[in-house]
Amino acid sequence: MFSSRVHLLNICQQKKGNIAGFIWDKISLSAVTFRKMSSFNQEFKERFFRGAASGEIDDVRLYIKGNVDLNERNERGWTALMFAARNGHLHVVRELVQHGCDTSVINSTGQTALDIALFWNHGDVARHLQAGQRYLHPDDNFRNYFSLNTLNRCSDKRKDRGWLANKINDANTRFVVFRNLEVLATKLPKSSSMYRYELGKIEMKPIETILACNPVTIFLGLVQENRQVPLTFKEPALFAVDLSTMSEEDVRALSPGSELLPGYPAAMQLLPAEAGIFAEARSMLAWHDRYQFCPTCGSSTRLEEGGYKRECANLECRSHKGVHNTCYPRTDPSAIMLVVSPDDKRCLLGRSQRFPAKMYSCLAGFMEPGETLEDAVRREVEEESGVIVDRVEYHSSQPWPFPASLMLGCIAHATTETVKIDETELEDARWFNRPEVVQMLTRQHPQGLFVPPEQAVAHQIIKTWVRRTANL
Amino acid sequence: MFSSRVHLLNICQQKKGNIAGFIWDKISLSAVTFRKMSSFNQEFKERFFRGAASGEIDDVRLYIKGNVDLNERNERGWTALMFAARNGHLHVVRELVQHGCDTSVINSTGQTALDIALFWNHGDVARHLQAGQRYLHPDDNFRNYFSLNTLNRCSDKRKDRGWLANKINDANTRFVVFRNLEVLATKLPKSSSMYRYELGKIEMKPIETILACNPVTIFLGLVQENRQVPLTFKEPALFAVDLSTMSEEDVRALSPGSELLPGYPAAMQLLPAEAGIFAEARSMLAWHDRYQFCPTCGSSTRLEEGGYKRECANLECRSHKGVHNTCYPRTDPSAIMLVVSPDDKRCLLGRSQRFPAKMYSCLAGFMEPGETLEDAVRREVEEESGVIVDRVEYHSSQPWPFPASLMLGCIAHATTETVKIDETELEDARWFNRPEVVQMLTRQHPQGLFVPPEQAVAHQIIKTWVRRTANL
Ligand SMILES: [Zn+2]
Ligand SMILES: [Zn+2]
Repeated sequence: MFSSRVHLLNICQQKKGNIAGFIWDKISLSAVTFRKMSSFNQEFKERFFRGAASGEIDDVRLYIKGNVDLNERNERGWTALMFAARNGHLHVVRELVQHGCDTSVINSTGQTALDIALFWNHGDVARHLQAGQRYLHPDDNFRNYFSLNTLNRCSDKRKDRGWLANKINDANTRFVVFRNLEVLATKLPKSSSMYRYELGKIEMKPIETILACNPVTIFLGLVQENRQVPLTFKEPALFAVDLSTMSEEDVRALSPGSELLPGYPAAMQLLPAEAGIFAEARSMLAWHDRYQFCPTCGSSTRLEEGGYKRECANLECRSHKGVHNTCYPRTDPSAIMLVVSPDDKRCLLGRSQRFPAKMYSCLAGFMEPGETLEDAVRREVEEESGVIVDRVEYHSSQPWPFPASLMLGCIAHATTETVKIDETELEDARWFNRPEVVQMLTRQHPQGLFVPPEQAVAHQIIKTWVRRTANL
Repeated sequence: MFSSRVHLLNICQQKKGNIAGFIWDKISLSAVTFRKMSSFNQEFKERFFRGAASGEIDDVRLYIKGNVDLNERNERGWTALMFAARNGHLHVVRELVQHGCDTSVINSTGQTALDIALFWNHGDVARHLQAGQRYLHPDDNFRNYFSLNTLNRCSDKRKDRGWLANKINDANTRFVVFRNLEVLATKLPKSSSMYRYELGKIEMKPIETILACNPVTIFLGLVQENRQVPLTFKEPALFAVDLSTMSEEDVRALSPGSELLPGYPAAMQLLPAEAGIFAEARSMLAWHDRYQFCPTCGSSTRLEEGGYKRECANLECRSHKGVHNTCYPRTDPSAIMLVVSPDDKRCLLGRSQRFPAKMYSCLAGFMEPGETLEDAVRREVEEESGVIVDRVEYHSSQPWPFPASLMLGCIAHATTETVKIDETELEDARWFNRPEVVQMLTRQHPQGLFVPPEQAVAHQIIKTWVRRTANL
């Protein structure tokens, strides 16, 4: 688990140090921008690829030392790892993987380095890549965006008011600041990656007077970089605080050069290592924003347990007894699924009117009471597309803090193929074959069609399917 | 999928027709009751077992025709299927499986018929059993209790008030009746199974006057026995209605001989084929019971969309715009997990003070905002037991309508073994080896320890682990 965290961090570090001027913007959903690289960079990259293809490790090492993106691709989407795999250079493959090269990248025809090694019969390379691959069996090596959170929530400390009050005043404590559910963030100085913002983390001093007015304040947890090391409870604490009563100008002044990022999709530019903290904080604040009155009796409620409870002020209220959920934050489970055809050769993608032009994605919908995940998948697919689903495979989960969903990603195996869309939900839904989906994933589709970016679990489910149906 | 529904229905039918006098009560959690069978029944059963063991198919067929429980066990937990598998009688195995015999039953030493066939090297029998097995890869052949629901929810009809009003008055429509969240149910005349109640389904006439007073009424869906056959929308509708304003006596009088089943565990005696309908109805009514006021502004709310929405009466309220969830029913995702030791030879079971004496179960807890399922599993296990979990495998999901949870069942792979329990949550938690867990599953533990009954997803996860670690 920790290796993958480090791995993601490494990618960010590498991207931060990217050759200046090379910007590849995938975050803007409405347009894909490929800026031309300078001829110097082009030559540097060519030499990297040639080194990998020829097995000349020194040329590869030169590039690795340059602290640049090891997952750089050529015009056909090939990476250095693929060139090394094509020609069976195990020593190069080993070195690239060791330096954090992403084994799951796919080229324009939908192959990974592993697929290529298998096709060209380089068993030793294939075995090495197989051990490090990430997408065949989603498990802990694989993490969705909004999932990395290095905080220990210390839920047992939430009831300890004295401890919380001390932590708020502790010099090591930091505050993540929101205003109208927009988060204060700072643009990284030279980032050319799509992850170009870090959370603003404010000390207590500059917000001391406003804290005295009791804004909504959430205890997010203690920083714990390594879960194998037990907590001492002296670790720095992180709180989220809602400063909606302040002007935008005053909030931004708390951190020079900062911005307020509106929710979706802007917040998906946060560093992956901080996206889970943002998800925890924003979904908690969105709950407080909308749940200020007791739904059982209509009285006002007050914040308790470090922000993880709202208690009814009416002592006669039924909410003070029995088994119920009205006092606790709400999370809405949603099913999101890639429907695959009976022969597994095509998948069903749809688009709603709300999507950016030319984007297609997995079908999805909120789960209902008294329903299994598997039946929610079947119901949503049938309602939206008329297609009947039999077997449902779980893929992975993702918090989606707009306002507080839990996306449960699945692959759904269809038994029928006729599509009849629900026009109130979807503008279009149809079957796409694998080569076309690869073009959409790699943003090389002739009509410019594309799927959501890698921050979305839909992207990851689609990628898993493309990966495992690879057939060179 | 449909075969498994039919299969479960078959089991119920068979159990309904059981030899009178043979009662095996597993539902009562506090005590296990094995009533003595008459010597006649004993002899009948012995002949069945002998027939299966010797391969004399006529003796087996006689028993099958008797319409009794094919999963009957002897004192060591062996079924006829196991005897047939032991001696390699493929024709008997085939006939038993074809008649709905449960291939997942385990004997007192934790073996299934498949394990036994593999051990005694009857490859043909093993292959036949493998094709029909249910618990190795939980998929559609496997269904948790509260998961079978033959209704099509027809969510697109919820906004059509005219259609709903017509359906309420339709002669084929039936009402599932609740009073203070207790459901009206009828005891099956001769049932000796643990599933001995069916839902009371009332016509409109006897409740016509009370329906005029607008009690909370939920459109549950249309009866659809076969999902491959498109709906005509003329199918009988089922509604749930809250008759809490009536006396218990008057409600029971609606269906002679009926009872009001309180929630847990009494409702787990409902026929499995109806348990999903109960789950949908009860969690919806529990939501209406607790969410009568708008949490955003404190105003009263009114029921809309066939009961699937509550709208704020205050037209100025923010709940009428923007993305939020306050108007829709709430479902609380929970993680429930069997923690297995690093060597996969033991599992961690715990008990809270609230459990029946001597019952141990999986650890579990509510998910929090901004958390993945996998991280919720890790957090809960660490908080409750101090054990560190790395890889998390999804098993299956189960609606748990007390009041409205979604249980997400997992197997959690531990990397540490030291247990340090959170005494506010648990009374005990410790590692159990596989033979002991088998004794607990089969209710043959020397100290009387046991795990939850088969209606609980915890039981199914434990059974999956026991099954796949079988080692004859
Ligand atoms: Zn209240
Ligand atoms: Zn309101």
